[in-house]
Amino acid sequence: AFREEFLSHHPYDQSVFYVKADPDVRQLLYQYLSPDEMADIYEAIELDDDQYEAYFREMNANYAADLLADMYTDDAVDILNELNKEQVVSYLTIMDREAAQKIKDLLHYEEYTAGSIMTTEFVAIPKNSTVRSAMNILRNAAPDAETIYYVFVIDEEKRLSGIITLRDLIIADEDTLISSIMNERVVSVSVSEDQEEVARMIRDYDFLALPVVDFQHHLLGIITVDDVIDVIEEEASDDYSKLAAVSNMETFDRGPLTAAKKRLPWLVLLLFLGMITANLMGLFEETLDQVALLAVFIPLIAGMAGNSGTQALAVAVRGIATGDIEEESKLKLLAREAGTGLITGLACATVVILLVYFWKGDLLIGLLVGAAIFSSIFVATLAGSFIPLLIHRMKIDPAVASGPFITTLNDIISIVIYLGLATLFLGDL
Amino acid sequence: AFREEFLSHHPYDQSVFYVKADPDVRQLLYQYLSPDEMADIYEAIELDDDQYEAYFREMNANYAADLLADMYTDDAVDILNELNKEQVVSYLTIMDREAAQKIKDLLHYEEYTAGSIMTTEFVAIPKNSTVRSAMNILRNAAPDAETIYYVFVIDEEKRLSGIITLRDLIIADEDTLISSIMNERVVSVSVSEDQEEVARMIRDYDFLALPVVDFQHHLLGIITVDDVIDVIEEEASDDYSKLAAVSNMETFDRGPLTAAKKRLPWLVLLLFLGMITANLMGLFEETLDQVALLAVFIPLIAGMAGNSGTQALAVAVRGIATGDIEEESKLKLLAREAGTGLITGLACATVVILLVYFWKGDLLIGLLVGAAIFSSIFVATLAGSFIPLLIHRMKIDPAVASGPFITTLNDIISIVIYLGLATLFLGDL
Ligand SMILES: [Mg+2]
Ligand SMILES: [Mg+2]
Ligand SMILES: [Mg+2]
Ligand SMILES: [Mg+2]
Ligand SMILES: [Mg+2]
Ligand SMILES: [Mg+2]
Ligand SMILES: [Mg+2]
Ligand SMILES: [Mg+2]
Ligand SMILES: [Mg+2]
Ligand SMILES: [Mg+2]
Ligand SMILES: [Mg+2]
Ligand SMILES: [Mg+2]
Ligand SMILES: [Mg+2]
Repeated sequence: AFREEFLSHHPYDQSVFYVKADPDVRQLLYQYLSPDEMADIYEAIELDDDQYEAYFREMNANYAADLLADMYTDDAVDILNELNKEQVVSYLTIMDREAAQKIKDLLHYEEYTAGSIMTTEFVAIPKNSTVRSAMNILRNAAPDAETIYYVFVIDEEKRLSGIITLRDLIIADEDTLISSIMNERVVSVSVSEDQEEVARMIRDYDFLALPVVDFQHHLLGIITVDDVIDVIEEEASDDYSKLAAVSNMETFDRGPLTAAKKRLPWLVLLLFLGMITANLMGLFEETLDQVALLAVFIPLIAGMAGNSGTQALAVAVRGIATGDIEEESKLKLLAREAGTGLITGLACATVVILLVYFWKGDLLIGLLVGAAIFSSIFVATLAGSFIPLLIHRMKIDPAVASGPFITTLNDIISIVIYLGLATLFLGDL
Repeated sequence: AFREEFLSHHPYDQSVFYVKADPDVRQLLYQYLSPDEMADIYEAIELDDDQYEAYFREMNANYAADLLADMYTDDAVDILNELNKEQVVSYLTIMDREAAQKIKDLLHYEEYTAGSIMTTEFVAIPKNSTVRSAMNILRNAAPDAETIYYVFVIDEEKRLSGIITLRDLIIADEDTLISSIMNERVVSVSVSEDQEEVARMIRDYDFLALPVVDFQHHLLGIITVDDVIDVIEEEASDDYSKLAAVSNMETFDRGPLTAAKKRLPWLVLLLFLGMITANLMGLFEETLDQVALLAVFIPLIAGMAGNSGTQALAVAVRGIATGDIEEESKLKLLAREAGTGLITGLACATVVILLVYFWKGDLLIGLLVGAAIFSSIFVATLAGSFIPLLIHRMKIDPAVASGPFITTLNDIISIVIYLGLATLFLGDL
């Protein structure tokens, strides 16, 4: 009765129960559920990358190997990539040869490519089939295929030559030839394509799945929309974390030590960069010694440079990520950012000159702070958009130019501008 | 020939051509394409919110009304929400009564709710149908339904009582009763549910569509996976923009004035906050006057507080957005962040004491800077996680606690700590 009740829930709900359960309850589940039933749970589960190893240690090796063989290949590969070498070798040895081979074929695709997120459980039909024979193939494939809603049409050399949806099949006459009703303009991706580009295509075309082909247009696998959702979330979290200088978004059931370990490398790096700022300021110690009031505006100026630089950075990084910035429009973006920096810099400088004048009654200090704010905002805005574009041109993920780096860079730029101007006009202060 | 060639492309590709074309080419398209064909383009198009009005002005009102009537209702409603009142009234008046009514029904759902992203083109079948009659209903609905892959089963009062997939239907015996093979544990959402929660459900359950019900469980509409992808991207861009203090991510074909207009409100607000920092520092002008070396470390200390605060903020905001932080674990998160702040604060303080000692040979200043860095990081980490949790508890989007606000707050906290400590120990410096 427990078994039936448990299995009547959606696999995702089963997986939530499974993850929250005590290890001895999980042992019971391994007894009650077949590897195939456990495979459904592992297709839906959400674990941190480093948790799979321990969970698989709980199972005996035969059970684990059967479970992996029963999963969709893409999901099995995702898990095997997180297990240790020993486990991988033992499971692949125990597993039946055919299943092991399918997994090995997918294991060698590079991370973040189309190949790494595709699966091989698709339905392919020959070009010369009729609708009737296609439907029969579909019915047979239905229990095992990831999706049967898109049917891929291949020629004699297994090259992708068309696509037809189940929607079209069920309304077509049974004797119709597939080749006469299929869509020949099939959109596909190369196996080495970036997963972000795959995500953009599924988003734009509203596909449920996208075929993956090699350079000779042989059909290798498909990428389904549910996996693309995970890619989009992963990439968005990644960009977000980098803007905040946290490596990999943390999970929430871990201790402070794990969290500190992930944040400290960034903080110590930024600390050293901050020491450079302090060193540079040391060069102006004499100026600061003579007019202590100058120091009062340093956080404001550095802060405004940081803020405007982060704004420009975010627009550029996000624009590259969503594909809105293409090669051609990079120069246009820089020109626009220069204009934006001019306008925002002038506006903020005007406000600050008035504020300082009415607060301190000191027009000269006001003008100095205003000039520093204007030039800092202008330079910071340009740097904030130029640096990610440059990094992107160097084929590196522009998100590594994270917020705090730009902020520290802008600290340096703005302080040198401010204290440099102050030193120049020191006689007048 | 142009017409056939054009229509053989995917509607998304058609929409890219349409958007890039000159207005007079678009006029030709309005002549060549029926409103129904143009509707396919508008279901796939990507325009900025404020561009719809101008595009619709290019069409004559009858064409526009027909186009909107031919679109899936959710997409038509999205567009009508961007047009001006006049246009909306005129199109809804011209349109045939039934289509207009369907649109009006959806128009009044609040933004960001399940109701605002659902559509009404779903396939529903009575509980007592057979598989044969269900397939006939499906075949008739195929040309117009958003998806025919999920079939929703309703009782006599139109309440949702089950779901069955086309996959299950095509392998079932034709005489089987739907009620005996349907899935009764159907997952649904309330029409007033937050769209982010809808997105989480489709992500977790890997659904292609999710039924939307009212409080009496009547089936009102469905939300499809393609629209959920747009919600996920929109929400991620939104959080990202706010972390960087850019209101609404900008588009890239606009001038610097538009960009400046979107960034200036934030910058000016942050400028005023920065003036508060400057004011507070003014209180310590005497201390700064006596030991100018103190000023040199201000950007470093403020920067480190800003960095650690942003890290904590990002973890909290993203955790709330992805649903990883539930009510119960909030206290745990705060306790963990306190621990994290202690560890990272101590580590950074140790590094900085050594650096200052070896650079300036001044142990006392080193200890002072170290103490300031330790307490700033600790307080900033706590504030960075506490503030978004508090805002979330107040039912406000935690992302409004954007990076620069936390950074400015942490500027203030860290400078007061640092200069306060310095003033206390001034005699010894
Ligand atoms: Mg299975
Ligand atoms: Mg993978
Ligand atoms: Mg889309
Ligand atoms: Mg998959
Ligand atoms: Mg999956
Ligand atoms: Mg990326
Ligand atoms: Mg249509
Ligand atoms: Mg809507
Ligand atoms: Mg929301
Ligand atoms: Mg999923
Ligand atoms: Mg839709
Ligand atoms: Mg859509
Ligand atoms: Mg949000």
